[in-house]
Amino acid sequence: MGATPIDLKKCAVHTRTNKPWSLRQCCEAYARRGIGGVSVWDDAYADIGSDEARRIIEGNGLGVPALVRGGFFTSLDKKERDQSLDHNRRLLDDAAVIGAEMLVLVVGATPGLSLSEARTQVSDGIAALLPHAETTGVKLAIEPLHPMYADNKSCINRITEARAVADGLDHPLLGLALDVYHIWWDPQLEEEIAEVGASSRIFGFHVCDWKLDTRDLLTDRGLMGDGVIDIRGIRSKVEAAGFSGWNEVEVFSERYWAMDQDAYLDLIIERLGTCT
Amino acid sequence: MGATPIDLKKCAVHTRTNKPWSLRQCCEAYARRGIGGVSVWDDAYADIGSDEARRIIEGNGLGVPALVRGGFFTSLDKKERDQSLDHNRRLLDDAAVIGAEMLVLVVGATPGLSLSEARTQVSDGIAALLPHAETTGVKLAIEPLHPMYADNKSCINRITEARAVADGLDHPLLGLALDVYHIWWDPQLEEEIAEVGASSRIFGFHVCDWKLDTRDLLTDRGLMGDGVIDIRGIRSKVEAAGFSGWNEVEVFSERYWAMDQDAYLDLIIERLGTCT
Repeated sequence: MGATPIDLKKCAVHTRTNKPWSLRQCCEAYARRGIGGVSVWDDAYADIGSDEARRIIEGNGLGVPALVRGGFFTSLDKKERDQSLDHNRRLLDDAAVIGAEMLVLVVGATPGLSLSEARTQVSDGIAALLPHAETTGVKLAIEPLHPMYADNKSCINRITEARAVADGLDHPLLGLALDVYHIWWDPQLEEEIAEVGASSRIFGFHVCDWKLDTRDLLTDRGLMGDGVIDIRGIRSKVEAAGFSGWNEVEVFSERYWAMDQDAYLDLIIERLGTCT
Repeated sequence: MGATPIDLKKCAVHTRTNKPWSLRQCCEAYARRGIGGVSVWDDAYADIGSDEARRIIEGNGLGVPALVRGGFFTSLDKKERDQSLDHNRRLLDDAAVIGAEMLVLVVGATPGLSLSEARTQVSDGIAALLPHAETTGVKLAIEPLHPMYADNKSCINRITEARAVADGLDHPLLGLALDVYHIWWDPQLEEEIAEVGASSRIFGFHVCDWKLDTRDLLTDRGLMGDGVIDIRGIRSKVEAAGFSGWNEVEVFSERYWAMDQDAYLDLIIERLGTCT
């Protein structure tokens, strides 16, 4: 079973992928090449505000799959958890302004708190956030993060646990963002994708690659085709599970950030065609 | 439920932990401090041979939980898989000579081969190796490796898949080596440890720690107490599951290798008492 041919109009690039560029540079460059969308990291509009961000994005005719990133619900301190909820509500407001379909949630993990206790805090936090998601009409997407981020970034490290939270709260605005980087190794990948798809909870799909002998846990991701992930195989599973949304390119890479970003974007588009 | 107090006589240190030292320096230093055992990496006797290694180890009155490391059963090339089996047989011979209780298996992973296909090759490889394990009387211990090593080191990244191979082959000489570094994040940790223990297949238990914001995927491990792992909690689960063998200290760390190794060994012993 193959994946559908890549349609650039249904592809988006995360601003963090072209980190050296401003939001305006990103949007103009994506639009010029026929890319249909931009996923916006919060640092990309911190200086200009969400209204100006919306004008730039709309002026370039781009869709916005996601605002990245909310979450970080866990803490040993109740006050910090409340502050985190307030921050997430502000992010939902921003997402509504810029027209983002979803807020991506990196759920958090806290040393001293067991991963199981942390997952309970995450579920409670999302439950408390859902009324504001309803008000804004913005979806919430739990992103399972690779187990190497279980120390202080995410207590949800497989689709299984993300699905458990989403199934438990069972809300039409709550689903998952699946990033091949985080999930490719999972022995239950195929069954889990089918399960999440069956409940229509695949909200986002992120592509990049895992490089052989990765040198850094955060900023040594590969571009599609640089590494070992069967991206097209995973994409075909996600599509077979009913997903027909955006293919979002999310690559954190010191090596690529050091490149000329126009040449890099040409390479991204090439790899979307050949390796995605 | 607590873990039993640490008894140094039932602790062993991996030679790789004190990488700057020769096998003789390791053995003399461990014995001098009352540590009961040494787990031997193959590079520790490459220059002197297994007979001389045995003399050094016996001369210092040490036990040998493990020879590290065999495995790497996977390849796209049948000839390479056969060569790997031959290499593993030689390692079993060496293990018998130096008196190692088990050969630790890092099972391998091969780009271009799906992780599922690779696991089949692993099971086939171990099946082919078991007759020689019987001849030598040395046990085989599958070590599940953290999912961040699924690219080219191990297609077995959770206890679950290691247990499936061991249960499938069901041989008294085949079990698992559990390293807290690889398994601590697993949402099924408690149930899986209980399952492996119920079939008496926990052969080895390795301790170290996962540092916050780990800088390197291979050589930035923490010493017990440096990081986020609830080592004592995991040890109590392993003991509750019936394991009463060695606590093996296995730390790969550029930072610690740069230290005076005698001072480092003092610290290891302190942390065995306070954080293990």
